[in-house]
Amino acid sequence: MEKLKPRTLSGFMELLPGPQLQMERIMEIIRESYALYGFTPLDTPLIEASEVLLAKGGGETEKQIYRFTKGDTDLSLRFDLTVPLAKYVALHYAELAFPFRRYQIGKVYRGERAQRGRFREFYQADIDVIGDGQLDVTNDAEIPAIIYTVFSRLGLTHFQIRINNRKILNGFYAMIGLTEKSGDIMRAVDKLEKIGADGVRAILTDDLGLTDAQAGEILDFTAISGTNNEVLAALEGYCGRNELFDEGLGELKTVTKHLGGFGVPQENFAVDLTIARGLDYYTGTVYETALLDHPEIGSVCSGGRYDNLAEYYTDRKLPGVGISIGLTRLFYVLGEQGMLNSEAPTAPADALILPMTGDLGAAVALATALRARGLRTQLYTEDKKFKAKMSYADKLGVPFVLFLGEDEINAGVVSCKNMRTGEQEKLSPDDAAERIAAFVAEQRKAPPIIE
Amino acid sequence: MEKLKPRTLSGFMELLPGPQLQMERIMEIIRESYALYGFTPLDTPLIEASEVLLAKGGGETEKQIYRFTKGDTDLSLRFDLTVPLAKYVALHYAELAFPFRRYQIGKVYRGERAQRGRFREFYQADIDVIGDGQLDVTNDAEIPAIIYTVFSRLGLTHFQIRINNRKILNGFYAMIGLTEKSGDIMRAVDKLEKIGADGVRAILTDDLGLTDAQAGEILDFTAISGTNNEVLAALEGYCGRNELFDEGLGELKTVTKHLGGFGVPQENFAVDLTIARGLDYYTGTVYETALLDHPEIGSVCSGGRYDNLAEYYTDRKLPGVGISIGLTRLFYVLGEQGMLNSEAPTAPADALILPMTGDLGAAVALATALRARGLRTQLYTEDKKFKAKMSYADKLGVPFVLFLGEDEINAGVVSCKNMRTGEQEKLSPDDAAERIAAFVAEQRKAPPIIE
Repeated sequence: MEKLKPRTLSGFMELLPGPQLQMERIMEIIRESYALYGFTPLDTPLIEASEVLLAKGGGETEKQIYRFTKGDTDLSLRFDLTVPLAKYVALHYAELAFPFRRYQIGKVYRGERAQRGRFREFYQADIDVIGDGQLDVTNDAEIPAIIYTVFSRLGLTHFQIRINNRKILNGFYAMIGLTEKSGDIMRAVDKLEKIGADGVRAILTDDLGLTDAQAGEILDFTAISGTNNEVLAALEGYCGRNELFDEGLGELKTVTKHLGGFGVPQENFAVDLTIARGLDYYTGTVYETALLDHPEIGSVCSGGRYDNLAEYYTDRKLPGVGISIGLTRLFYVLGEQGMLNSEAPTAPADALILPMTGDLGAAVALATALRARGLRTQLYTEDKKFKAKMSYADKLGVPFVLFLGEDEINAGVVSCKNMRTGEQEKLSPDDAAERIAAFVAEQRKAPPIIE
Repeated sequence: MEKLKPRTLSGFMELLPGPQLQMERIMEIIRESYALYGFTPLDTPLIEASEVLLAKGGGETEKQIYRFTKGDTDLSLRFDLTVPLAKYVALHYAELAFPFRRYQIGKVYRGERAQRGRFREFYQADIDVIGDGQLDVTNDAEIPAIIYTVFSRLGLTHFQIRINNRKILNGFYAMIGLTEKSGDIMRAVDKLEKIGADGVRAILTDDLGLTDAQAGEILDFTAISGTNNEVLAALEGYCGRNELFDEGLGELKTVTKHLGGFGVPQENFAVDLTIARGLDYYTGTVYETALLDHPEIGSVCSGGRYDNLAEYYTDRKLPGVGISIGLTRLFYVLGEQGMLNSEAPTAPADALILPMTGDLGAAVALATALRARGLRTQLYTEDKKFKAKMSYADKLGVPFVLFLGEDEINAGVVSCKNMRTGEQEKLSPDDAAERIAAFVAEQRKAPPIIE
């Protein structure tokens, strides 16, 4: 028979068993962390009616959408988890309690040009808190705590959650009469590191036609930095000139005030006036998260506050605040950087039983006993040479191999080989189980990521 | 602005938060049970190249496939987890250790006619053991143990794993010279309960043209029942007449021999000669699982042994044995039958903190302390009347509410209300945490399914 060459589509991540187990552990930690803050899991369909999914229409995303017809129905694969959430909340409004806190970890689809490290199918891991009509700013203060919990449990210490407030930016530009030009100005300011303050000043005055005073105000504002308290104190100096600015500063102060209470250490947090995020969607607090040793990775967790989650489906005002982790890309980058912890479990089993007798009764009983104690156990029953069996154990990376021959069975023991150290000992089945369980408990503490 | 009516496609399950948490718990138990037997998780793409996915071609399934073009690429959504596994094993053959044991819980897509209880997007939860060239029959004996572990951990006791061997059936039909007619005969035998032995005999002789002796042999064979030992003893009577039959009986005896050792109680297992499953795919052991109080549900876990997993992609012989749980349909049917345990957790949090003061500092600190102890905690910070706050707690179904007013803060206590009993007590934060943790540990023991 003619064989067809098996292949996986480019832009689709398909992991080998070891890395897949590392990925699963990362997802488990994210799930547990989100749940700890009282978020409930959702699982919406991968496919939605195109008119529903694309209600907002237009934009860069639309070209990337996987859209097709089945029968008479125009369908699309979801390209994020936010639009399905908006649909869900509008559709099930009457049955939900608000503020509605949900997390969702799921695959989304974007037909981007395929290139190394870019994925067409990728996981997002989102949380959002949705208010009914209003949503207290304390929720904005809780978000950094959730980010902190996720990344520190994953094994990271050297990261920084950066926060700003869009009202402060918008208020500032309004205050100096430059609301219309704010986009151009931000792009110019973005070049600060490259071309220096004088270069930026030149663009602002010569290209954008700002006055010297306006350019001076912008450069002064952009230069604000220091500890959180220093930044907040500098921002106080602008108070009373614009209502939106004052509101934004009030929110930023509330958020920073509660951070310690929510358990976020000072060193993992910074007020950063250069963070802006999506200009049209976010309306208040915005977040980014940087791995300090790997600035090239960019933000690993971003989000913010928005005014209207579901305006395309309902007249109700549903403000929210949320964050998203681009999990597939993160996992890819961590792998590239050598940051996946090889000490964390990558084997499909904690113990592999190798029977050395024809009758498998004793080996089957041992496997059942180990499993009853919660140990992930494989029983190897193929009729192979000893060398082939050991090569299987090696390839699996299993931490313990248990040999069971006539001698062991007669003496009521097993030969327990620690594959890390090479040590081999005859132990009672109970003692072997205890030794393996102790190793597993220790190994389980190894975080999936190392810095 | 014109609003678009939000909707979810028909045939796509989208659960409310409470049921979703029940579903998550069921998936968690399946995952843990599969892992306990040394299976490793895989996560293959939802989308594959059509030529790869449809290499086998033809058949009923092809019409149901979600197939579309993106750019120049002909794509299809997976319709099961077996074809992607075949592709995976053929593609990554050199990097895998055999026997390769994997589980996958994932969504698959079939554009069936939408009707109540039929889904177009649904979860399958599969395990397979794939051998390289050969695969010992002991693996077939382990499978019922995995089914038993899954369903008993889910909360069921009154279920039966039914097993047969296709070689016995094929061998038997060959032995009486009726290999060609075996399909027609099985359909006739299937009517036994409805039309009785004489009715079946009439079809066999009159419609299918069998001799009286052949019809008699078939009816005798079909009538074999009793305990496992009785059935096996009756089958011994046919030995020596057909090689395939003898081989199948040998396998069936090996499988039943090890069941006790693998921990499957007698009452949850039966050799059942009426089980056939897919005629062309399975070649040896076949499994079905019945809920004895709900025969109308049909088999909740089925599978079997096959000779060649990946014959469309590789010349290597890759025999395997596996099972599949149709999770979405199972969950739907359990809900319809009232079998989802309402005592199992359905709230997004174990504790809800209701601050009664303007300053949220103490409430934030309490939330952080509870979370540090692993308790899923929500902090309610909206500025609402007391009644609205309590109505939120009720709607959430949260087991404990913690009130924190001036009095409590000054006295260093919290008012802890058990929402099940209505009892309210002032407790130290530590005592409150302990009480909640005890409840959570107890609640966690409640299985997701009740009979």
